[in-house]
Amino acid sequence: MKVFRQELTPVSFLDRAGAVYPSSAAVADGERQFTYREWLDRARRFASALRAEGLRKHDRVAFLTSNSESLLLAHFAVPMAGGVLVAINSRFSADEVEYVINHSGARFVFSSAELKGQLPLNTDVVELGEEFEKLVESGSQGELEGWLQAEDDTIAIDYTSGTTGRPKGVMYSHRGAYLNALAMVIENRLNRESVFLWTLPMFHCNGWCFTWALAAVGASSVSIPRIDPEDVWRRLDNDGITQFNAAPTVLIMLANHPAAHRCARKVRVCTGGAPPSPTLIGQMGELNFELVHLYGLTETYGPLTLNIAQPWLESVGLEEQAKFKSRQGVPHVTAGEVGVIDERGNPVPSDGETLGEIVVRGNTVMKGYYKEPEATEEAFRGGWLHTGDVGVMHPDGYVDLRDRKKDIIISGGENIGTIEVEQAVMSHPAVLECAVVAIPDDYWGEVPKAFVSLKPGQAVTEAELIEHCRKHLVHFKAPKQVEFCELPKTSTGKIQKFVLREKEWSGREHRIH
Amino acid sequence: MKVFRQELTPVSFLDRAGAVYPSSAAVADGERQFTYREWLDRARRFASALRAEGLRKHDRVAFLTSNSESLLLAHFAVPMAGGVLVAINSRFSADEVEYVINHSGARFVFSSAELKGQLPLNTDVVELGEEFEKLVESGSQGELEGWLQAEDDTIAIDYTSGTTGRPKGVMYSHRGAYLNALAMVIENRLNRESVFLWTLPMFHCNGWCFTWALAAVGASSVSIPRIDPEDVWRRLDNDGITQFNAAPTVLIMLANHPAAHRCARKVRVCTGGAPPSPTLIGQMGELNFELVHLYGLTETYGPLTLNIAQPWLESVGLEEQAKFKSRQGVPHVTAGEVGVIDERGNPVPSDGETLGEIVVRGNTVMKGYYKEPEATEEAFRGGWLHTGDVGVMHPDGYVDLRDRKKDIIISGGENIGTIEVEQAVMSHPAVLECAVVAIPDDYWGEVPKAFVSLKPGQAVTEAELIEHCRKHLVHFKAPKQVEFCELPKTSTGKIQKFVLREKEWSGREHRIH
Repeated sequence: MKVFRQELTPVSFLDRAGAVYPSSAAVADGERQFTYREWLDRARRFASALRAEGLRKHDRVAFLTSNSESLLLAHFAVPMAGGVLVAINSRFSADEVEYVINHSGARFVFSSAELKGQLPLNTDVVELGEEFEKLVESGSQGELEGWLQAEDDTIAIDYTSGTTGRPKGVMYSHRGAYLNALAMVIENRLNRESVFLWTLPMFHCNGWCFTWALAAVGASSVSIPRIDPEDVWRRLDNDGITQFNAAPTVLIMLANHPAAHRCARKVRVCTGGAPPSPTLIGQMGELNFELVHLYGLTETYGPLTLNIAQPWLESVGLEEQAKFKSRQGVPHVTAGEVGVIDERGNPVPSDGETLGEIVVRGNTVMKGYYKEPEATEEAFRGGWLHTGDVGVMHPDGYVDLRDRKKDIIISGGENIGTIEVEQAVMSHPAVLECAVVAIPDDYWGEVPKAFVSLKPGQAVTEAELIEHCRKHLVHFKAPKQVEFCELPKTSTGKIQKFVLREKEWSGREHRIH
Repeated sequence: MKVFRQELTPVSFLDRAGAVYPSSAAVADGERQFTYREWLDRARRFASALRAEGLRKHDRVAFLTSNSESLLLAHFAVPMAGGVLVAINSRFSADEVEYVINHSGARFVFSSAELKGQLPLNTDVVELGEEFEKLVESGSQGELEGWLQAEDDTIAIDYTSGTTGRPKGVMYSHRGAYLNALAMVIENRLNRESVFLWTLPMFHCNGWCFTWALAAVGASSVSIPRIDPEDVWRRLDNDGITQFNAAPTVLIMLANHPAAHRCARKVRVCTGGAPPSPTLIGQMGELNFELVHLYGLTETYGPLTLNIAQPWLESVGLEEQAKFKSRQGVPHVTAGEVGVIDERGNPVPSDGETLGEIVVRGNTVMKGYYKEPEATEEAFRGGWLHTGDVGVMHPDGYVDLRDRKKDIIISGGENIGTIEVEQAVMSHPAVLECAVVAIPDDYWGEVPKAFVSLKPGQAVTEAELIEHCRKHLVHFKAPKQVEFCELPKTSTGKIQKFVLREKEWSGREHRIH
């Protein structure tokens, strides 16, 4: 190491936490609890065991499990050993899991007992639990010789839960993970008193880099394998939870659960993956949650922008406030530049009206897609990462997401962002969740259709709901049809619009976009 | 700019603050106040004016002024323009100032009216005030083309106020300044609600990188040209100050001023430059100051370690608590490694007893001394920055400073750290400040002598004070003589021990160490 140059890596956060916060709780997972001193020793044991078992520099190490202490540990131990972590989405199909194992060329595979069946039959797998503990015990807790030579080296590959096509392996660098983790600490005010509840899957953008951020300040993790709303409410009351992260769909579920009640202390809740509706924002405030709206992609290490409140908000009505808060916002402190560009690559006017594609560049953008140079080049064309999200730029520099590029509706030549339509539908008190997609129309080409699930015990007719939307939207944006149903979702709680769309378009020619 | 790689620079913090916190107060200096939006425009004007006046990449731009909005602005505008900031210690003698101007090869020199007389006669100087404002106005507030190509480029050169020899120019990089600023944000919990009072000179390690850190989170600065204790106490009451930084000598002055009183809200106070005595730590707590003890050097961008409290402290007595808090502590979150080594370069035992030199390496160590490759090589020998400070390593990894290497007393073959002796002297209620130096002794070689200033209205005799020390120290460490006097200090409040020593040793042969 040079005297004034050290490669940036979030592994250093655990090395330091073990020394500086030795007796602080690092992680609790059911009955199992570790202080940072114990946990650093454990990470070193796991890392040295990996090396003893033959891990070579940059070997991929795959984990297939829901949230658990072992997966959190792997975020430090695998790169500490010199490997690259591949945290597989636990809801991937057996086909997808097989693809990821093969494509990443994983040299080690770890799996929970319950998910082992998803792995290809001939996989050499270490089962989490007894077998894993035996492996960890076989390691030594001394400090390992560092193998990291360049901070741009890959620390993790995150396979996207692509709604169509094969999963793509998004490569994170040590430097990017370090910088995004520090931004999470700063923007979310994490400190050694923080107690974080893992409602967010750790395999999802490495838990938005909170996996690493918490160790940077000696904060505590409470790992839960799945979200049982009653359990979450109980933990909020009893476990001193100060913060959790979740997609809006999860928050809707929590806020509408019978156990929901106003928290005694304010709890910070970061949400992302989809814009929270003004309705949800209002509801969360009443429950004493401080809602922070983040926006990002797997390709941006998770959170990239956040909605920072402005002083003038205090002097406007609640509806305008909620509308502002549903914007995706501005880049976080280490994120770099965010823009909205037209098809020729020029910035659209900052008028809050003109649609364009959201693009980004900076230290918290992925290195590229693993073994897919063409897809990487396509994503990076023109010197920006293209998000595939359509939005507008407001005069104050706040980005406002209007739709996924492939979800946008073109009706009689006009663009309709489905998010705006969905928010109008969801402002009706009977509606729990909603997804709007384009359906074919012989005259207009496409028109919006809303798929809606209602709150328990609530009722509303299709006609009433369309009428409600017409009060809030110009008429051509209001849904032409409403269907009441349960909405199909991905593992991270995103609604699978392509499932809804396929149903409507089957037998028709493919949509142009 | 590459899609996933941006050079780290703290200038980005102001670019972002201008966009994200446009209406927040950036800085107040007397009647002058600027929001971040206004201040970013102002920085851009100043930067573009520098370029228009002929600044070339990496040209040095010198400032000679006490704390002021213009010097704070220069921390962003000068590197934004592509230049290197040289913030000169305002208490340097005319000789030293001339040396710095010449050695740095400053292309532009800015000075306050009151300090202009310190500059060499033929200097082409821009006076802060009207002349400076005219220059800034001549600039344009558009975004400048960035000239930064490598984050390792120099952002600032800080000339040390060496107690002996010529000042040395410590080079800071954009990367190091960025990382140390983020650490200051995290470890000191700065956020957009913070209001920071500039009791610390901005020329001192660029204000410990708080100059840049505050902009990273949109916090407010209140600039004051000098410390008037009554004014500081008034501002604490009236200006919503949440934090300030100062050397222990300044804190002693504030805590013992007639205007001192318990603050209504807790105020965070970072101190460094010398270890706070247990007496001072106790006093500060009573005034509702949360004292954070930092340690660092000009060569480490200011703060390098901090004293992080441990849970077990709550169960021990106040004296033991204060003793723990006077330790220098552990590396901050971006700081790298700190060690204590013996003369052969090996780590001393972590026993809290064995003296060695404190050494450090990591991203927040200087690039080197400007135009002094030999001095740089000497400071970096063995792959560490040698601090010239003598200390011990405790079993828990906390560094505890015992003395400056050149201040240590060797008495009958035993090492005596003067800090320990000073703290024993200062635990006497009548003592305000104290400095202990070696004086010649025919039998022991050297023995400790204490120079002491008393609190107003207090009295104690030499014999009483020596007796008091013998209760707290093994006898050979207690001062053999006590002299009551006013202590000579540097501009940053450090006591100039070499002045005291010279007086005692004049006419004698030079000391060996």
